[in-house]
Amino acid sequence: MRPQEDRMEDLRSRALEYARRNRDVTLEQLVEFLGIPSVSQRPADKEHIRLAAEWIARRLESVPLERSEIMGTDGNPVVYAESMAAGPDAPTVMFYGHYDVQSAAPLNDWDNDPYEPVVIGDELFARGASDNKGMIMACVAAVEAAARAGELPVNIKFLIEGEEEIGSVNLPGFLSTHRELLSCDFVVNPDVGILGEDMPTIFYGLRGMFACRLKVRGPSQDLHSGGFGGVVHNPIHALCEIVAGLHDSEGRVVLPRFYESVRPLTEEEHAEMSSLPLDEDAYLRQSGAPELWGDKDYAPVERAGARPALDVVCIDGGTEKAAIPTEAAALLTVRLVPDQTPEEVRLQLTEHLEEHAPASVRWELENCEGFPASITDRKAPPVTALARSLERVWGSPPVFHRSGGSIAAVGQMQEILGVDSVLTGFSLPDDRVHGPNEKLHLPTWTRGIESLVHFLYELTGASGSQ
Amino acid sequence: MRPQEDRMEDLRSRALEYARRNRDVTLEQLVEFLGIPSVSQRPADKEHIRLAAEWIARRLESVPLERSEIMGTDGNPVVYAESMAAGPDAPTVMFYGHYDVQSAAPLNDWDNDPYEPVVIGDELFARGASDNKGMIMACVAAVEAAARAGELPVNIKFLIEGEEEIGSVNLPGFLSTHRELLSCDFVVNPDVGILGEDMPTIFYGLRGMFACRLKVRGPSQDLHSGGFGGVVHNPIHALCEIVAGLHDSEGRVVLPRFYESVRPLTEEEHAEMSSLPLDEDAYLRQSGAPELWGDKDYAPVERAGARPALDVVCIDGGTEKAAIPTEAAALLTVRLVPDQTPEEVRLQLTEHLEEHAPASVRWELENCEGFPASITDRKAPPVTALARSLERVWGSPPVFHRSGGSIAAVGQMQEILGVDSVLTGFSLPDDRVHGPNEKLHLPTWTRGIESLVHFLYELTGASGSQ
Repeated sequence: MRPQEDRMEDLRSRALEYARRNRDVTLEQLVEFLGIPSVSQRPADKEHIRLAAEWIARRLESVPLERSEIMGTDGNPVVYAESMAAGPDAPTVMFYGHYDVQSAAPLNDWDNDPYEPVVIGDELFARGASDNKGMIMACVAAVEAAARAGELPVNIKFLIEGEEEIGSVNLPGFLSTHRELLSCDFVVNPDVGILGEDMPTIFYGLRGMFACRLKVRGPSQDLHSGGFGGVVHNPIHALCEIVAGLHDSEGRVVLPRFYESVRPLTEEEHAEMSSLPLDEDAYLRQSGAPELWGDKDYAPVERAGARPALDVVCIDGGTEKAAIPTEAAALLTVRLVPDQTPEEVRLQLTEHLEEHAPASVRWELENCEGFPASITDRKAPPVTALARSLERVWGSPPVFHRSGGSIAAVGQMQEILGVDSVLTGFSLPDDRVHGPNEKLHLPTWTRGIESLVHFLYELTGASGSQ
Repeated sequence: MRPQEDRMEDLRSRALEYARRNRDVTLEQLVEFLGIPSVSQRPADKEHIRLAAEWIARRLESVPLERSEIMGTDGNPVVYAESMAAGPDAPTVMFYGHYDVQSAAPLNDWDNDPYEPVVIGDELFARGASDNKGMIMACVAAVEAAARAGELPVNIKFLIEGEEEIGSVNLPGFLSTHRELLSCDFVVNPDVGILGEDMPTIFYGLRGMFACRLKVRGPSQDLHSGGFGGVVHNPIHALCEIVAGLHDSEGRVVLPRFYESVRPLTEEEHAEMSSLPLDEDAYLRQSGAPELWGDKDYAPVERAGARPALDVVCIDGGTEKAAIPTEAAALLTVRLVPDQTPEEVRLQLTEHLEEHAPASVRWELENCEGFPASITDRKAPPVTALARSLERVWGSPPVFHRSGGSIAAVGQMQEILGVDSVLTGFSLPDDRVHGPNEKLHLPTWTRGIESLVHFLYELTGASGSQ
């Protein structure tokens, strides 16, 4: 096997060399990609969605890959590409990404146009710079480097969807329809970021999500607050009472049986999390909040990663008019951890509201949806291969962590394709993903590309094949 | 005095006859007036504000009145008109009105275009039909009828402002500057409506207003709710906790000393209010709320008219994105009763927030403004003259009541011009003032015009002059 190993090392060196030489070209391409405002929340942006899909499909074709195409779904299209040239004995890795971005509203909060990327020092500012176009381009650059170095050491698939920011609503249908096409050994999902510039991270857990709209209705028409103030229950007040009543004074969610199905942290996890440099100060610094909040029985890092959290992310009721409105509404999200299910939380919330919502208003839950949390085997070969790759570039082994975020695609792929996802990423906690002035830390991104190059070669050992 | 009295009765008959004959023309004019969307909340509507001011100035000129002009303020102009032909010994009555209207948003809730008035049966549907263009036109029609019958029995002034729906912010300045021009014996303010179709009403009290914006700020940037959910206090939750904590479980406001300066109801007032057909069923029917709410120590009619009320009329925070927002805000209004002051309520609210707002967020009060409640002498000659006029048309004496609404102009005129306002109106409780499908009940409006005609002649007796 020696000559084969030498050949791999030779290819790896050339690929790394290519990736370094080509880094600025990749950055220019990323800037072009970021210029397309492919927001999936707004139906008005369909044209931009199409442009972004076409852009990344062309880019994948030019890697070159054997096949690259835009495939329809009931919503925004999926871009699929592959190279199976490594042969049936080589592992097949599928890179997942999403070309859609979060809305950049409110634009006033941005220092620059979110769709005219600007590099300031080590940072690239644009909507999607970190989430997720920068990550897609890191994967593309790594695969391209390996392809240009000679031949690809493993089989490669790309699945780049256009609806991640709206819950990957049509991905399950797509996965079911194309189960065979998408078969692979595992998925690389670089949509989670790392814990710090000097802290490469592999995430082995993700929180799930339950989301719904809680609507509270009172009077049948807007009422003059002069004529009815003090006589009917203002739906805004009733909604506030309900929202205020969802947590106890210690920041714990009070829904019945809410924590019963929460899987406790193991001693090992607890020790690992304690060793992370994610103490109260780090969370205070990153958030800019006056003080931290939440269940004091758990450290902040545990609360964010391994405990469920309930947040009203949007509340809306009334107008500037001096009127008691007919209704008020809250968009409620619950980050789930194993082994909670969206359906059990929906039932708990319903039970809670039935018992505690004031009789002076009517309420309803609308648009209930969600997916469970997921957790991956930390000893699986692709995970250890990625760990070695990150260590080669950063010089220290990665930390293993559970992310507080939620990626619907991970659970869907586990369920429908039967494959685990290896979760990492090269965005930093202060990259303001989803917020104004989203950015990408370019030195970390560059290291990310090189790690992914290593990863392609580490996999050939890790898989035990050849 | 006999011939003079006969002459007055003769003029009154001719004026009533003219008003009846001219009623449909007046209605057509009202429809034209209502077609101008003179919303004062939106700076974009300045052109419509100007058109509405010009329209009513021209209309007043054609009454005819000796003088009618548009006069500048620091904001929307005031339309002023007068006839002083009755001479220095006759009383001078100033009709107050406002040509601005509330925004009609959300337009979807209207069955018809709010600015294309539609008559269905006895009702005229349009924004401003009741509040306040219909009332202005009733006053104009009555004065015109008296003018066309011969000569006006009293001196007449009209002050029609364009900023009532934004708190009459520039009226105090205008009143101060033109104190002499605006001198009069009393003001007729038909901006309060009546309690029922068969219940002509004179209001001798109005609630005042304290308004402010409560802003709650947490993290310095929007935070991904996956990364920070459960770790920082969501400003939406904090705001809900604050709003929920403003009332106790009985619906009483918990601000410190809040009820201390509230003037208790007299036995007479209590008896009068109890006799009104405004029981729980009436409030339930008018509001469409599932049940009533508020301090059970007081009847609904007392809570609405003679007790203070705190309402959040608007709440806003976050977006559809899964993010913990940097801030959330509530527009808070307090309807004041004698002898509360806006400033004391501001201090009470500040004290309450200092003690109870969670330390995990920052808060501030912005745009604090307000004016006190007002109360009028029920035995004053213009009040008794109006009572007789209403009785002549309706056949039963009016009820005396305190309105839960607030009209800044009333307090301002009391303070700056030293004149009381006689408060009535011809809109009904279900006219959806400020709401969608605002309407005017035309038979009541017609009776209103005739009552105002009577009023002009009753005043000559009431004043004791001539």
